[in-house]
Amino acid sequence: MKVRVHVSLKNGVLDPQGRAIHHALEGLGFAGVNDVRAGRLIELDMADSVTDEALDEMCRKLLANMVIENYRIEKVA
Amino acid sequence: MKVRVHVSLKNGVLDPQGRAIHHALEGLGFAGVNDVRAGRLIELDMADSVTDEALDEMCRKLLANMVIENYRIEKVA
Repeated sequence: MKVRVHVSLKNGVLDPQGRAIHHALEGLGFAGVNDVRAGRLIELDMADSVTDEALDEMCRKLLANMVIENYRIEKVA
Repeated sequence: MKVRVHVSLKNGVLDPQGRAIHHALEGLGFAGVNDVRAGRLIELDMADSVTDEALDEMCRKLLANMVIENYRIEKVA
């Protein structure tokens, strides 16, 4: 089973990395970019026996910092 | 227009961050994890006038390191 975990900063949390990317895009001459947020993408290859609850617990305990980040679990196959 | 860019390491490229996550998951007692790969997720809010070509160029020039990384563009809305 392939699982993708998308981790992104919660709204309102400052994102210096996103800001740096935004600034760099403008510096390269790309127009029309309003906002950039940077997050993480974690791809897991796991046994089919792993339950949704276990997956959720992995995200809450390790993959995402629940104070400032949201996560979204996407099962690929 | 909201766009998500998923950046992940190419196959065969060593991924110490993914390995550390894998190791940590095992340390926390989670079984059944075969492999972990870590990547980046960049969410862009941009004007509808931005073309697909410009988006592609942003990825190739700044968002992804084409030597070791692949990217995937996902338009959200």
